[in-house]
Amino acid sequence: MSSESAFLDWLRQRAPSSSDAAPLGLEDDAALIRVRGPGDWILTTDMLMDGTDFLLSECDARLAGRKALAVNLSDLAAMAARPHVALVSVALPRRDGHHLGRQLYEGILDLANRFDVTLAGGDTNSWDGPLVISVTLAGTATQPGPLLRTGARPGDSIVVTGQFGGSILGHHLCFVPRVAEALHLNDEYALHAGMDVSDGLTLDLSRLAQASGCGAVLDLDTVPIAPAALQLASLRNDGTSALDHALGDGEDFELLLAVPVEEADRLVAEQPLDVPLTRIGQFVDEPGLWAALPDGRRQTLSPSGYLHQMDG
Amino acid sequence: MSSESAFLDWLRQRAPSSSDAAPLGLEDDAALIRVRGPGDWILTTDMLMDGTDFLLSECDARLAGRKALAVNLSDLAAMAARPHVALVSVALPRRDGHHLGRQLYEGILDLANRFDVTLAGGDTNSWDGPLVISVTLAGTATQPGPLLRTGARPGDSIVVTGQFGGSILGHHLCFVPRVAEALHLNDEYALHAGMDVSDGLTLDLSRLAQASGCGAVLDLDTVPIAPAALQLASLRNDGTSALDHALGDGEDFELLLAVPVEEADRLVAEQPLDVPLTRIGQFVDEPGLWAALPDGRRQTLSPSGYLHQMDG
Repeated sequence: MSSESAFLDWLRQRAPSSSDAAPLGLEDDAALIRVRGPGDWILTTDMLMDGTDFLLSECDARLAGRKALAVNLSDLAAMAARPHVALVSVALPRRDGHHLGRQLYEGILDLANRFDVTLAGGDTNSWDGPLVISVTLAGTATQPGPLLRTGARPGDSIVVTGQFGGSILGHHLCFVPRVAEALHLNDEYALHAGMDVSDGLTLDLSRLAQASGCGAVLDLDTVPIAPAALQLASLRNDGTSALDHALGDGEDFELLLAVPVEEADRLVAEQPLDVPLTRIGQFVDEPGLWAALPDGRRQTLSPSGYLHQMDG
Repeated sequence: MSSESAFLDWLRQRAPSSSDAAPLGLEDDAALIRVRGPGDWILTTDMLMDGTDFLLSECDARLAGRKALAVNLSDLAAMAARPHVALVSVALPRRDGHHLGRQLYEGILDLANRFDVTLAGGDTNSWDGPLVISVTLAGTATQPGPLLRTGARPGDSIVVTGQFGGSILGHHLCFVPRVAEALHLNDEYALHAGMDVSDGLTLDLSRLAQASGCGAVLDLDTVPIAPAALQLASLRNDGTSALDHALGDGEDFELLLAVPVEEADRLVAEQPLDVPLTRIGQFVDEPGLWAALPDGRRQTLSPSGYLHQMDG
């Protein structure tokens, strides 16, 4: 039997004790975050649970820890913010908790190091339930200001990074959050709006359109389909096509952007990132979501994606 | 069957949509926190689980939500910081999740309103496990700077607010975080160090002393014992005295302060708060924790309090 304090001793040794952004380290009740000059802070939080967001029976706890930080990094990328400090709360299963906690934090700290994020505090608990991790990430907005969901205008092109679908086959545990990509695009191009695709391409697109008070028309032929989406359609063989997987699987953690049409022409022509940028449709006046038909008409498209179901 | 989106619609209506500190409301991937002038931000997070921090079978979910915010407010009070915005992540049991979620947020929002805290974002999940709530609270340090654990010096008096012990009988669900008290004391008196008592008076005192590189001697006769500690000792009748409960029960959420001796004289004489301030001992050179004996000698005291137990 070892206790929380032994685990926290290990964590203090393993995690950098302080940084410019979090000068106090892990000693106090709360983390002190030092502000340099004016600017807006961006805060985001996500909770991941064993059995829902990962299966500890099938994956290393390092990957669960990595994902818990990565989804938060993706949320900051969605707003073109620069990440600085993270707080990590965990409920560790009492059985094997120390070992599991170490693996979990190894995964978190490796990714944190890669993205210049300091672990500034948190809360370590143990219980008889499954593993739960909640990460809060604090960053700063960059010039020309944060990318919001509300800025898309009719006529804007819909532009995405990367490919979609089949994330469950592995991508959701090892994706690279599009932080650098978002910072570069927001710096070099005039973007109107953006978000990351976490719940499903069509569901998240319909949310972005709704937040901006407009609608969206997708050119289905242009949606970049991940090899994993083809593989999943073939494996499951249940009538769900690879395109269906791309439109609704979620956990792609790619950027979904509203870009003025001439700027989108330039963006797609220049391809300034290591990951492909693809125009997949346009925003329109009328609220709703449609697929563009070859004859120029539109067909209503039902948003698909992940929603947490709950009773009454 | 109703879904996450119906719940989020309810939440958006119920929670104030924006504030000076969080001008964007609940729409985007992350919360934008507006900084006014220079100053350090203080961030804290705590995770509470059904069965560990509260029993939903015995208490209203409003009280669980209230506690989840209150413990974070107490962490900011520990550093004499002013709270501004909260992020709330929850894992709701799928069964009755919508109803439970509403009650939970009612409890959070009532207390948030009382402490001028804006709910700036979060993450709502459902699963087959018990209720888990993780709250992150962001505030700002006030003049003359944040209260830290590291500033206690040998000779400083140990001063506490309120009374200790027996919190499990109800106090842990309805305590008022000492935010206003900490701000007032830090503003009006020269405090050397401070924290809140969450895990146990002696355990937390030994942590504060250790962080400051000194030791502490308690005058056991002066420790303010809560009526609930007497009641618990009597109810359980297991040889644990009311004083034992006061020294180690935890969840008192009172302030524990290191105050220069003359300043402590003034503080205790003036009693500037609605809650009593009591001197219960002093910090000393030699690391460790002791009880003062009537003859002037010291007896070693084992820190007692709550530690999360976990295996290997």
